[in-house]
Amino acid sequence: MPTPPPRNPDFAARTRADFTRQQVMQTMGITITALAAGKITLNLPFNTDFAQQHGFMHAGVISTALDSACGYAAFTLMEPQAEVLTVEFKTSFLAPAQGDRFECRAEVLKSGRTLMVSEARAYAISNNREKLVAAMSATLMAVYPRETGR
Amino acid sequence: MPTPPPRNPDFAARTRADFTRQQVMQTMGITITALAAGKITLNLPFNTDFAQQHGFMHAGVISTALDSACGYAAFTLMEPQAEVLTVEFKTSFLAPAQGDRFECRAEVLKSGRTLMVSEARAYAISNNREKLVAAMSATLMAVYPRETGR
Amino acid sequence: MPTPPPRNPDFAARTRADFTRQQVMQTMGITITALAAGKITLNLPFNTDFAQQHGFMHAGVISTALDSACGYAAFTLMEPQAEVLTVEFKTSFLAPAQGDRFECRAEVLKSGRTLMVSEARAYAISNNREKLVAAMSATLMAVYPRETGR
Amino acid sequence: MPTPPPRNPDFAARTRADFTRQQVMQTMGITITALAAGKITLNLPFNTDFAQQHGFMHAGVISTALDSACGYAAFTLMEPQAEVLTVEFKTSFLAPAQGDRFECRAEVLKSGRTLMVSEARAYAISNNREKLVAAMSATLMAVYPRETGR
Repeated sequence: MPTPPPRNPDFAARTRADFTRQQVMQTMGITITALAAGKITLNLPFNTDFAQQHGFMHAGVISTALDSACGYAAFTLMEPQAEVLTVEFKTSFLAPAQGDRFECRAEVLKSGRTLMVSEARAYAISNNREKLVAAMSATLMAVYPRETGR
Repeated sequence: MPTPPPRNPDFAARTRADFTRQQVMQTMGITITALAAGKITLNLPFNTDFAQQHGFMHAGVISTALDSACGYAAFTLMEPQAEVLTVEFKTSFLAPAQGDRFECRAEVLKSGRTLMVSEARAYAISNNREKLVAAMSATLMAVYPRETGR
Repeated sequence: MPTPPPRNPDFAARTRADFTRQQVMQTMGITITALAAGKITLNLPFNTDFAQQHGFMHAGVISTALDSACGYAAFTLMEPQAEVLTVEFKTSFLAPAQGDRFECRAEVLKSGRTLMVSEARAYAISNNREKLVAAMSATLMAVYPRETGR
Repeated sequence: MPTPPPRNPDFAARTRADFTRQQVMQTMGITITALAAGKITLNLPFNTDFAQQHGFMHAGVISTALDSACGYAAFTLMEPQAEVLTVEFKTSFLAPAQGDRFECRAEVLKSGRTLMVSEARAYAISNNREKLVAAMSATLMAVYPRETGR
């Protein structure tokens, strides 16, 4: 699917700046490893602080990285003054989230002025092998200044 | 809707014990504040370590608490030897996650031997007032020892 | 949860008029059996024309009735000039869709100017007994004349 | 993603036979246009009998075709004695469902013994051009004879 053109030529710098304002990304050690118009890859390191009862990463933590990936993929295509909000997401968990680190790759499926739809997949990486562990589809909203409601 | 009967008379103690094994619950300060057969309430305190770019709690962190609420509500109805896994969840975000703390209230909608469906809602609490901020529906799976596959 | 006030005092007549324009409702025999601000109940008769391989109503047909229920519940709260579009929905199937008829009860969880969230449940009715067979959560969009994009 | 091997060498004939048992497929004129292990394409012709209030195909009807696509993609990978049930699905609607016909292409993302996850996309086709109009992710369950519960 062809990626629609960005509405903001300075999308990369703006996306990176906004990302650094998400305190939870630093708390979880999540970083941007690739960025293009309509696409982003985030890296989440394994950390037992965020594990569930079997020692795997908690589904909500994987969703945190996937949601930021979906949101920032959409953000790259938004107008310069827009803010991004998550309307909803669904995540399917396909395998235990065990690995040295996790790559979350998102891309925009639909780029409307108000609503965008992104999809992302999380891969567990260990010893240079990767395994698909989760898939998200998300609806994002562009919020413009002075607009009220949602 | 009448809650189906628990398959394990000792469900409360088993659920609390399993909950303490989720390291991420301690990291985020999430605690059980109410527990019954097929129902649970979790409390998540506001913490800027888990905030997004506008200073609200990140959607993934709210989902972490909601997912554990859905999962443990289902767990209370599972057989004594079962483990619980999240198959998938969807979360709708209805208002900014701002407040002193968040209450996540989950209950089981369907209690099959293998699959369960739970619903949960997150309320932001400030000054004794509560506001609905998110709603999750989740599919959970009971996994029994020696069974393989998923 | 208190239902937010309607933005259109004539919501009931407008909703019923729009409903009659959905040809698929007539094809499937779906009718409105109750209507209030933010709430609606639709009735779907059992019909083997819309059955799946085990003779139950197909999941997509149940979703058709649930989606219209979610959409029209939201529509009752929209401004007089707005049109309603479904952004996304998720349906969980809890029991086989067998019964003489199905009642789909929807209500609005969030009523924003642009986006609304509704939830609906489908009950199979036979011999005056009802059984929950499916649950939907849906995001709806109010589209205003002259607005472009989505 | 490599498709996992089928558990039933006779999967194609069994899938086609089961498909013909879905009465709703005939009612809506839905047919199989391509079939392989873990993949299927269904064709849905435009029909005003199944239209919503703007004359487009109803979201639930598109979901009917997408759900059967997801279900039968999974069915191709199931054991010879298994039946398939839809546990849940989510559909995002990306553009109005207008076109001469609709192609629904599904593929399996995860193939467990009990649970499978499929994804499908619906494309509107007019004048040999196609446009993505909807995307579904679905959880399917393999049900084996003599097993009770779900």
